[in-house]
Amino acid sequence: MKVKWLLDSLGHDYRWVETDVMAGATRSPDFLARNPAGQVPAVVLDDGRTLAQSNAIIGFFGEGTPWLPTDPWARAKVYEWLFWEQYSHEPYIAVARFQRALLGKPADEIEPRLMERGRAALERMEAALTAAEWLVGDGPTLADLALVAYTRTAPDGGFDLAPFPAIRAWIGRVEAAFGIG
Amino acid sequence: MKVKWLLDSLGHDYRWVETDVMAGATRSPDFLARNPAGQVPAVVLDDGRTLAQSNAIIGFFGEGTPWLPTDPWARAKVYEWLFWEQYSHEPYIAVARFQRALLGKPADEIEPRLMERGRAALERMEAALTAAEWLVGDGPTLADLALVAYTRTAPDGGFDLAPFPAIRAWIGRVEAAFGIG
Repeated sequence: MKVKWLLDSLGHDYRWVETDVMAGATRSPDFLARNPAGQVPAVVLDDGRTLAQSNAIIGFFGEGTPWLPTDPWARAKVYEWLFWEQYSHEPYIAVARFQRALLGKPADEIEPRLMERGRAALERMEAALTAAEWLVGDGPTLADLALVAYTRTAPDGGFDLAPFPAIRAWIGRVEAAFGIG
Repeated sequence: MKVKWLLDSLGHDYRWVETDVMAGATRSPDFLARNPAGQVPAVVLDDGRTLAQSNAIIGFFGEGTPWLPTDPWARAKVYEWLFWEQYSHEPYIAVARFQRALLGKPADEIEPRLMERGRAALERMEAALTAAEWLVGDGPTLADLALVAYTRTAPDGGFDLAPFPAIRAWIGRVEAAFGIG
């Protein structure tokens, strides 16, 4: 979704191709020829070049926008959050949601470690967003866009956002900044 | 190590502070004040600013070097590999090594999924490095630096590199390019 939101915000034209991971569509020879990592999302440019990894994709399309600062330090801090999202947030927050909302697993069958680490990720964000309105600098960046994607749907994975008021207020700001409905 | 190799290659001065993850040193109040994510590596600049996430750190110090191309597409492809490394390579190749070489777990106690996904990551690299000498473009980039770190020590985690001749040849090229001993 973060790729879609960014392209929409920037007014880029694209064709959305739904790819059914559950049905093995990311493992088909056609898909693997485009993205050998066998993962969604992947974008195919008009000339056929393919780019995968959601955060690399938003980095590519974010270049030249205020959402990817040119100042080297601010840019590095954006990427710090993007890497943290992939390593310490998505594998818990998004995976718990996938297991509950998409596979239909009952709450007591979700690995406790997923929930524990997901909550630790939310606590870390709450601390950052208590200290500042945005994750990096004085305005919205790709860091906010990347983190909001699964944070706003965390409750689907069984994470209660009630104890995280700073996160809840920030979700509203990020949705407004990127026109997320 | 990738941070150290890059700083060494570029002739940056630094002080190396060994941080004992096993003894909980990344969870101490002092460490968490510097890096709230509680992870190594983290660099502290002379003015006290802190940057974490190995790939964000090499991106910061790699800026302005030939190892981080300025061409937006090549740069995006470098970041694609960096994100893939953190999501689809490190969690298997590095974690298996950690469990075997550092925790001393016997081979048959390593989760089969770790080995399976680690091998899939190596297969994907072998295919890429059979088609080209470097992961992105015609010369070494941060993508090669980031990927070589745990790939060269994959055998410590029980991954046999014999079936991956392209990877083995590439490791030598990357070590030579970055002066890795």
